[in-house]
Amino acid sequence: MSVTTYNVIGTRPIRHDGADKVTGRALYGADLQLARMVHGAVLRSPHAHARILRLDTTKAAAHPGVFAVVTAADFPPAPTDKIVDFGEGDTLLSSLRGNILASGKVLYSGHAVAAVAAVNAHVAAEAVALIEVDYEPLPCVLTAPAAMAPGAPLLHEGLANGNVAEYVRHEIGDLAAGFAAATVIVERELNTATVHQGYIEPQNATAFWSSDGRVHIWCSTQGSFVARDASAAVLDIPVSQVRVTPMEIGGGFGGKINVYLEPVAALLSKKAGRPVKMVMSRRDVFTGTGPTPGSRVRVKIGVDAAGKITAAQAWLAYEAGAYPGAMVGPGAMTVFACYDIENVLIEGFDVVVNKPSTAAYRAPGAPNSALATETVLDEIAEKLGIDPLELRLRNAAKEGTRRADGPRYKRIGCVEVIEAMKASAHYNAPLPGPHCGRGVAIGYWFNIGLPSSATLSVNADGTVNLIEGSTDIGGSRTSLSMQGAEVLGIRAEDVHPTIVDTDSVGYTGVTGGSRTTFATGLAVYEAAQDVVTQMKARAATLWGTKEVEFSNGTFSSGSNSFSFAQLAAQLGATGGPVVGSAAVNPRGAGGSIAGLIIDLKVDPETGKTDVLRVTSVQDAGKAIHPAYVEGQMQGGTAQGIGWALNEEYFMDGSGDMRNSSYLDYRMPTALDLPMIETIIVEVPNPGHPFGVRGVGEANIVPPLPAVANALYRAIGRRLHSVPMNPATILNL
Amino acid sequence: MSVTTYNVIGTRPIRHDGADKVTGRALYGADLQLARMVHGAVLRSPHAHARILRLDTTKAAAHPGVFAVVTAADFPPAPTDKIVDFGEGDTLLSSLRGNILASGKVLYSGHAVAAVAAVNAHVAAEAVALIEVDYEPLPCVLTAPAAMAPGAPLLHEGLANGNVAEYVRHEIGDLAAGFAAATVIVERELNTATVHQGYIEPQNATAFWSSDGRVHIWCSTQGSFVARDASAAVLDIPVSQVRVTPMEIGGGFGGKINVYLEPVAALLSKKAGRPVKMVMSRRDVFTGTGPTPGSRVRVKIGVDAAGKITAAQAWLAYEAGAYPGAMVGPGAMTVFACYDIENVLIEGFDVVVNKPSTAAYRAPGAPNSALATETVLDEIAEKLGIDPLELRLRNAAKEGTRRADGPRYKRIGCVEVIEAMKASAHYNAPLPGPHCGRGVAIGYWFNIGLPSSATLSVNADGTVNLIEGSTDIGGSRTSLSMQGAEVLGIRAEDVHPTIVDTDSVGYTGVTGGSRTTFATGLAVYEAAQDVVTQMKARAATLWGTKEVEFSNGTFSSGSNSFSFAQLAAQLGATGGPVVGSAAVNPRGAGGSIAGLIIDLKVDPETGKTDVLRVTSVQDAGKAIHPAYVEGQMQGGTAQGIGWALNEEYFMDGSGDMRNSSYLDYRMPTALDLPMIETIIVEVPNPGHPFGVRGVGEANIVPPLPAVANALYRAIGRRLHSVPMNPATILNL
Repeated sequence: MSVTTYNVIGTRPIRHDGADKVTGRALYGADLQLARMVHGAVLRSPHAHARILRLDTTKAAAHPGVFAVVTAADFPPAPTDKIVDFGEGDTLLSSLRGNILASGKVLYSGHAVAAVAAVNAHVAAEAVALIEVDYEPLPCVLTAPAAMAPGAPLLHEGLANGNVAEYVRHEIGDLAAGFAAATVIVERELNTATVHQGYIEPQNATAFWSSDGRVHIWCSTQGSFVARDASAAVLDIPVSQVRVTPMEIGGGFGGKINVYLEPVAALLSKKAGRPVKMVMSRRDVFTGTGPTPGSRVRVKIGVDAAGKITAAQAWLAYEAGAYPGAMVGPGAMTVFACYDIENVLIEGFDVVVNKPSTAAYRAPGAPNSALATETVLDEIAEKLGIDPLELRLRNAAKEGTRRADGPRYKRIGCVEVIEAMKASAHYNAPLPGPHCGRGVAIGYWFNIGLPSSATLSVNADGTVNLIEGSTDIGGSRTSLSMQGAEVLGIRAEDVHPTIVDTDSVGYTGVTGGSRTTFATGLAVYEAAQDVVTQMKARAATLWGTKEVEFSNGTFSSGSNSFSFAQLAAQLGATGGPVVGSAAVNPRGAGGSIAGLIIDLKVDPETGKTDVLRVTSVQDAGKAIHPAYVEGQMQGGTAQGIGWALNEEYFMDGSGDMRNSSYLDYRMPTALDLPMIETIIVEVPNPGHPFGVRGVGEANIVPPLPAVANALYRAIGRRLHSVPMNPATILNL
Repeated sequence: MSVTTYNVIGTRPIRHDGADKVTGRALYGADLQLARMVHGAVLRSPHAHARILRLDTTKAAAHPGVFAVVTAADFPPAPTDKIVDFGEGDTLLSSLRGNILASGKVLYSGHAVAAVAAVNAHVAAEAVALIEVDYEPLPCVLTAPAAMAPGAPLLHEGLANGNVAEYVRHEIGDLAAGFAAATVIVERELNTATVHQGYIEPQNATAFWSSDGRVHIWCSTQGSFVARDASAAVLDIPVSQVRVTPMEIGGGFGGKINVYLEPVAALLSKKAGRPVKMVMSRRDVFTGTGPTPGSRVRVKIGVDAAGKITAAQAWLAYEAGAYPGAMVGPGAMTVFACYDIENVLIEGFDVVVNKPSTAAYRAPGAPNSALATETVLDEIAEKLGIDPLELRLRNAAKEGTRRADGPRYKRIGCVEVIEAMKASAHYNAPLPGPHCGRGVAIGYWFNIGLPSSATLSVNADGTVNLIEGSTDIGGSRTSLSMQGAEVLGIRAEDVHPTIVDTDSVGYTGVTGGSRTTFATGLAVYEAAQDVVTQMKARAATLWGTKEVEFSNGTFSSGSNSFSFAQLAAQLGATGGPVVGSAAVNPRGAGGSIAGLIIDLKVDPETGKTDVLRVTSVQDAGKAIHPAYVEGQMQGGTAQGIGWALNEEYFMDGSGDMRNSSYLDYRMPTALDLPMIETIIVEVPNPGHPFGVRGVGEANIVPPLPAVANALYRAIGRRLHSVPMNPATILNL
């Protein structure tokens, strides 16, 4: 793609929702107030694994102020082996329902058992305490290796192999020959703990089941249509009977794709005949929603004397949590995805354990596996005496590189990212002093396509209303408006984006998989082209001509010309409004490579690690709004550093989480991190008219290994488990 | 148009918003609650005509709990001679603003002078009472003849001719020759009083002027885009800076097209920095919004011995209220519109008086003028000894008839309506007894086109979401959904209509002018055709063919076939969602003829009139949902009977309305009327694919003269003023 000059793309306009958010006016789920609304609360299991012998809600139902009580028995009959798919892969309906309200057994501490709707949240909590449950506690397993061990307690009947829900295998070339050709071979096993996405806003859902059979749900979700379709599946009603209004979202990072409260609020509302609002506490969020898997990943890499990787092998065991998970697949896909390797074997295991059912978390599965690959490569670079970035550069994936899981890359920015890291001021600066270390790593994350719809309506004042269905987590109102504005030759501020409910826009996939600016952006691009076509026809009518040109916001034919706004003012008189519409299901998603350079200092007295300097580098394809690309890079980096240094579900032997508050679950704050420097690399994606790659996720992949590598340089010892916290460092 | 068989059109499905409305869940403007919202109140003039010598808001602004006070001085500077048009004709911005907040003079009792926003409505009312105004009362004029008299007090500087704001003249043929050819000539002058639309829900508006400059308005309006554009004009900001969310509407009948509170709430919000909610009292509605004009109409008609009208002349003087009005135009257009007359002269005068500025009211202007024409014809029929319907039939307008105001009719159902009246059981039944009379009359109302937009989005379960911008007063969610369902071969219940805000759909004109089922219906039809085209292409892809047929909801090619739902389920895998969109500005609106047969009984002791039997007949073109067509016919008839018998603004000599409550302003209740029988005539409109004519208005035209003619038959005397109430009858 040749260099293109843009008018809007690449600039940094103020976000359209900025004033609403900084003035506190934006409405989040908990802000919703409806007439006659009542409040829900959930009873959660205190056991990590137990049989439910008796569940009696009589006293709760009779409690004054209670409107409804529901348990799993209130789900309508539906075949339990029904398979459902909301755009991100198959799930058993029974697993989906089982996680929402336990049936027969509880599988983790925090598992929802029953729910109550009452006149207010306090009465609801009182009533929850009146629900009587007799449990028969069962032995629990909390890690993948323990769950895979012979004789381990089984969570489910009927899984393929004990607690192993899925086995993934990718193989290319001749592994033995590859290792035989190697000069240096390093094999290491790396552990990661269960961590949470850590969004600020807890899950919430308000539902009203109307007497005409339609259910209206307001919730904080990354995907209104996913929430609609999943709720409809759980409730066994057609999707069109559910309307989801997405409220503003206070962070998701993958954790707000699954439904938890939505179907429960709906069932309570059906019984209560009133709107029912449910908002999780922080402990509910930690113990009742989906964290990312803890994992054990063994990687073995062989490299020849020239620094060329000859073979790579990976063994991955990911904790699924209580129900079959989906993260070992992408973990296996990405473990060696940055490199061009001829001989590869990758084996992955999805293992159920007595922890909350895992969910997506920003490039899910990839940081776990990259931790192993990138620390092993760091060790090999040291052994070979090659600069660690140079080693990566010699093996970097390029256009045409075949990945072990099958596909060949189209244009990919791996070389460009590594070269930008090498050329950076940070990488060429000296370390600031003793006890300091610098680490580097790179990582890959694919992008998904999925359907999106968009409509553009032209106003008489030359502005355009954008109607879309992608919930806005990181500035997508603006990145989408900018793409429309670029096509139409108007300012970003002249596009007014509105995110509407599922009844009011065409199907639009989840805001996840780094897809929104790419796929919904493509829908906006196509809708804008539709507007241009229609407006050209109007100009042709006005001028009595057939040929109308459009460029840089000007319609022209011979000596005639109209600006976009001039023509917009004449639409009423030339056939009526102009509304452009598009629905897409793009196939041209392009993956993104990210790299990180990090300088750390370790206090030898306390083991505390200070982060001194961080530079995040990422291929954005084309950065639509550079400030939001930088924001994504900084956000992913901060989360990855927290994951590497401090965060973990601290669980006791019975499977109870002991640090389920933000006081005890240690995420980095602004005081813990320096300003994160960013370098945007632009290797345009040929599958998008502006070259967009999704940038939301790849940036969280390098921090875990980069921190590990930097710590090694600072303290001279390699750690093999995250979090690499002060206690671990002191105990070395 | 040949007879067509429909699957959905002509059936009577339950309305989509039925459950919401009967369960009290539908949200009207007064139901809105926003965080930090404050409440507004308006100071209104006690004088019908006065100069404002001093307006001091200091004490009000200093009152505890007050957030903002505004007067006309708070309007931003804009040229006062600016002309604005929101789809229904030109208006001076200065008039629009002047009616919203008085400047310099007050022109009617109830004229808004200032407004306050305070912590609650009670404090706002207290603060309003603290605003100090010194008035210099001026002589007032309350009727058109008085205002047209030499030396009458003038309301405005610079009108063309004293208090006459507009003069309308239509002339065809040779009037003198026409009257010379007549056997019978009758000339009468008929008066009508000022009446109100009488919607249940008072005007309301909530506005929030955000710190980014955008204004969000929630209100009860017949046209969200008209409210947007008018508010933007008054506030002198671009239309795209205003977003109007239409709440449910508790009646409008033309009275909820103009803006009253919207710009005031916006100005208060800008000062207060908070959302400001304003809701009118009933007295505010009567004295501060727009009733329909009181009028004086003189009609002279000549008829030859064969019963053929040879000439007709009309002189119309309509009270505009305080600012130039728009009703004498349609009054003049429709005065003889039912008839094919060669020699015609029509003169109309729009006269400003010291009453509230008039607004549209269901077929605005037409009942006033039809009252004169139809009672004169009744008198002529009696003189000639011809059945009154037969006289009308001999002169009925037909396809090709040229109206005095210019246009020639396309297909028009005048003959068919009169014939249906003649053939009706009611017209052929005997009168029930003494003191009874039967009257008949017919009337015409044109339909308007104006732009509309619609989007249809296909769900995987074979249903469709309809996104539209027409506020639903009389069941248009359903009449529009049915048209989409008919095209797509699905059920009306399979279309889910949503009315969205002005940011979320293409420009859509007002719900008025009997246009919604016609024009927005056409947009839905076109959008559905777009869906069919896209889905045919999907089926073609799946079958590997080029030719796909679609009929009765089935896609087929050779031996392959899919139902709509079967194909809808496969869209995700064949290119993504299907969203059909259309924006139209149709030219094919067709007018509607209505007729009324009414039996009355007058109590000679009290003068009270009982309505015994009523049959409303109307050409619907094609009745999409017959029950809602019947509802419109019954509603218009009930309103017309109330106008004829009882309703009026009872004003004292100083211009103060003395009956501004529903206890004192006497509208008919269910106890006052029998079940109104209906006969739907269907003469398809060639300008619409299903033949739709708008049915919302023509039905209010015949009741005034039909009641007058029936009263004459009952009491043997002709009255020449409405209301024809007991006092008038007893005083004959």
